[in-house]
Amino acid sequence: MQSHTPGYDALTQAFTRLHKLQHLQAIVSWDQAANMPPAGAQARAEAMAEMATLLHRLRTDATMADALARAEQEPLTDPQRANLREMHREWRQSNALPEELVERSQLVSARCEHAWRSQRPANDWAGFVDNFRPVLAAAREEAQALSQQFGVSRYDALMDRFEPGTTSARLDEVFGAVRQWLPGLVQRVLDKQSREPVRAPQGPFAQEAQRQLCDRVMRALGFDFEAGRLDVSTHPFCGGVPEDVRLTTRFRDDEFLGSLMGTIHETGHGRYEQNRPRELLGQPASQARSAAIHESQSLSFEMQLGCHPGFMAQIAPWIEQAFGPQPAFAPDNLVRLITRVKPGFIRVDADEVTYPAHIILRYEIERPLIEGDIEAEDIPALWDAKMHELLGVDTRGNFKDGPLQDVHWPLGMFGYFPCYSLGAMYAAQWFAAMRRAMPDLDERIAHGDYAPVFDWLREHIWLQASRWTTDELARRASGEALDPAHFKSHLEARYLG
Amino acid sequence: MQSHTPGYDALTQAFTRLHKLQHLQAIVSWDQAANMPPAGAQARAEAMAEMATLLHRLRTDATMADALARAEQEPLTDPQRANLREMHREWRQSNALPEELVERSQLVSARCEHAWRSQRPANDWAGFVDNFRPVLAAAREEAQALSQQFGVSRYDALMDRFEPGTTSARLDEVFGAVRQWLPGLVQRVLDKQSREPVRAPQGPFAQEAQRQLCDRVMRALGFDFEAGRLDVSTHPFCGGVPEDVRLTTRFRDDEFLGSLMGTIHETGHGRYEQNRPRELLGQPASQARSAAIHESQSLSFEMQLGCHPGFMAQIAPWIEQAFGPQPAFAPDNLVRLITRVKPGFIRVDADEVTYPAHIILRYEIERPLIEGDIEAEDIPALWDAKMHELLGVDTRGNFKDGPLQDVHWPLGMFGYFPCYSLGAMYAAQWFAAMRRAMPDLDERIAHGDYAPVFDWLREHIWLQASRWTTDELARRASGEALDPAHFKSHLEARYLG
Repeated sequence: MQSHTPGYDALTQAFTRLHKLQHLQAIVSWDQAANMPPAGAQARAEAMAEMATLLHRLRTDATMADALARAEQEPLTDPQRANLREMHREWRQSNALPEELVERSQLVSARCEHAWRSQRPANDWAGFVDNFRPVLAAAREEAQALSQQFGVSRYDALMDRFEPGTTSARLDEVFGAVRQWLPGLVQRVLDKQSREPVRAPQGPFAQEAQRQLCDRVMRALGFDFEAGRLDVSTHPFCGGVPEDVRLTTRFRDDEFLGSLMGTIHETGHGRYEQNRPRELLGQPASQARSAAIHESQSLSFEMQLGCHPGFMAQIAPWIEQAFGPQPAFAPDNLVRLITRVKPGFIRVDADEVTYPAHIILRYEIERPLIEGDIEAEDIPALWDAKMHELLGVDTRGNFKDGPLQDVHWPLGMFGYFPCYSLGAMYAAQWFAAMRRAMPDLDERIAHGDYAPVFDWLREHIWLQASRWTTDELARRASGEALDPAHFKSHLEARYLG
Repeated sequence: MQSHTPGYDALTQAFTRLHKLQHLQAIVSWDQAANMPPAGAQARAEAMAEMATLLHRLRTDATMADALARAEQEPLTDPQRANLREMHREWRQSNALPEELVERSQLVSARCEHAWRSQRPANDWAGFVDNFRPVLAAAREEAQALSQQFGVSRYDALMDRFEPGTTSARLDEVFGAVRQWLPGLVQRVLDKQSREPVRAPQGPFAQEAQRQLCDRVMRALGFDFEAGRLDVSTHPFCGGVPEDVRLTTRFRDDEFLGSLMGTIHETGHGRYEQNRPRELLGQPASQARSAAIHESQSLSFEMQLGCHPGFMAQIAPWIEQAFGPQPAFAPDNLVRLITRVKPGFIRVDADEVTYPAHIILRYEIERPLIEGDIEAEDIPALWDAKMHELLGVDTRGNFKDGPLQDVHWPLGMFGYFPCYSLGAMYAAQWFAAMRRAMPDLDERIAHGDYAPVFDWLREHIWLQASRWTTDELARRASGEALDPAHFKSHLEARYLG
């Protein structure tokens, strides 16, 4: 029988092929962070740049434009049309960029990131800026090209790669409101917590025991070890492919909660990946919806469920079994430990309340940086001023705990930071919706029954993948597009309640 | 300035590009053996098949034939001409095979290998044969196509991929001679060793202590951990890329010498890879010469140096430091342990003397299998008969320790097995040449000075890569092409001396 959708069929074949080649890219990226010895860096960077160039060439092949045009006229089902919408988006993203820029972008960011690994501990801002300038230049060229293609501002064009549909106009609204209430909230929480003593756990904590504890908690959270692993890397992340999800964490001898909560965070990313719709795998519509929605899963696991007193009461005995009994392992003390608020230098170490300040600061720097209103040299002074204003801490001269702390800018990942806070907001919104639908949710969590959470996320987020736009996904899941009020209510209930 | 060698330049660029993409393939292959969880197998097999198809397409691109023809007429240096010879060989290998066959071959062998992992322990020959038939069929098609391209027999055409220039006519000579003297030699060694008592080490041997011991020995053997790693996999191998060499081993609690000697073996492969000429990297002339020459490096390390009484005297104290003192750790007892001869079922567990019997058996089965003179169903009876004849052991009904023991046939790797014994012969030949050039070699080894060995191998083998044909490489290194008499002398000196 002849197909009535030859254009669409050609596209699904092409995207399946891309998907298979991206499998290699994903595993090798994970390996780069988890395994690669130092002398392998240069050859690896060149190999990855070659692969990026090749994929770019396949994505922009002349036959794609024809197939896309034909498919638009074909009798497609609604899910097929959603897939076509995402195909079109991917194709436009790629087609706007010349191959030379794609390869150069890969190479300069790999070089900058590699040098940054030693420049950060050495507090070497001047050395960093030399490698960072070409990264910024390439990102600006990309922004310019994408801006013309999509008819949006340059920063919005970069952000669209991670968070399609979100604009800086909307971010200004959302973050502008947070900027108003956040400093006051931090102060009130600090006052309240100063009257609530907390016991510090006593180390050392054997790494093997930490590993086993993480493994046990991941299993309780439904991570499928037949289709994934947990390993160690300097910067924890979730990589791999849906059939083989690679989570990483890092262990310290003197502290275990950071690694445990980080692992719970990555497990949220991992379950999203492991539960994307299998029948569409390889097609753009099966991809995770966006970076913010991805973060909403990790933060649903870490902040909403992981910091829940009912959840902590369940795993407190496991902590005791891992390290022996300590007064600090009392469930309410553990909850106090993981919800302790303290303004500090480091984003990834920040508590849930001060975290948005770190994001707003980065957004307010990277946006003018991409728009060309400031230069790389201007970053430290802006950083100092904003840290002082938002969190009242002094970072002058401390580049390693300032603008050198994140891997995003060395890698040329501009426009990603806002997704972390949007993710926290979505996570709060999901749990508000769950509680409306299931009034006994907190009680069930307290009894160790997390199935209602997983079932809700699977149905409303994981299996939806990229079937809908982000706004439509949020409306279908929770009855409304993003409303940051849920996040504020969540913080007030947890930290001032 | 205009290039006088535009054809050759186009080729070097194309091969550099292939080399970079093969980097991803190499790391992902290693990951498949060292890390991949079971549910990842299917998606991985499909991704690897897609990559193989893509590389095949690039290798057989129409522009390649033109560039090769033009380069033949260009004013090349001798090393460039050697590189062109290897380019031509690779191109002919690829061009002989249709893309459909390359992809099918990958898929059927991935499926067969995956099923074999559980069929082997289950002794399930019947189940295995069902998956093996398509692997054999694809290999025969490849053999047919390559045979027509190169004008050699079908088995020789497959062997040429691993061991260019070696023919089954030559193997018949070499293995025919071994077949004559081997059973008698085995008998005499067994008689002699029956009068030499040996003490067995007492386990358990902690895996972390074994790991550290392996690490220490690898460093003493010059392995560069800045550009490589040691990990664990079911079947030890040397993978990765020259800038990032991935060795694997496996540990048992009740035994440590197998893992230690296996690690020394892989270290030989690893140093060859780490020392291939850097200025040519990415070009065919920089590749390892052949599988037999590669095995000659691992066996130079394991059998020639590793089993040397002078070497064992050096590392005996490290063994004692790793596991505590035992009478079995006396140097001469350790040498007896690792040179103990015992006819057995398993090739990879075989001692140096009975090992060639395992190879001759496989060669005498896989050659008629590829030529179409026998079928998969005929393998077990032939296996039993030959094991009885060559080693006097009974394998009837024991498929898992018989024809199911190796991964090569499930993977469609026909023509590789002979390289192991050719490698042992070359290794003996290299050490005979070293001793002629350096009469104090054994004394220096006994003093822990292995530099003469490494320097000789680096100069004569590692840095030569594929500059010469195998015969020419051997002649330049040792004054003669392969002469198996050195292997016989080595065995007689070590086991009957």
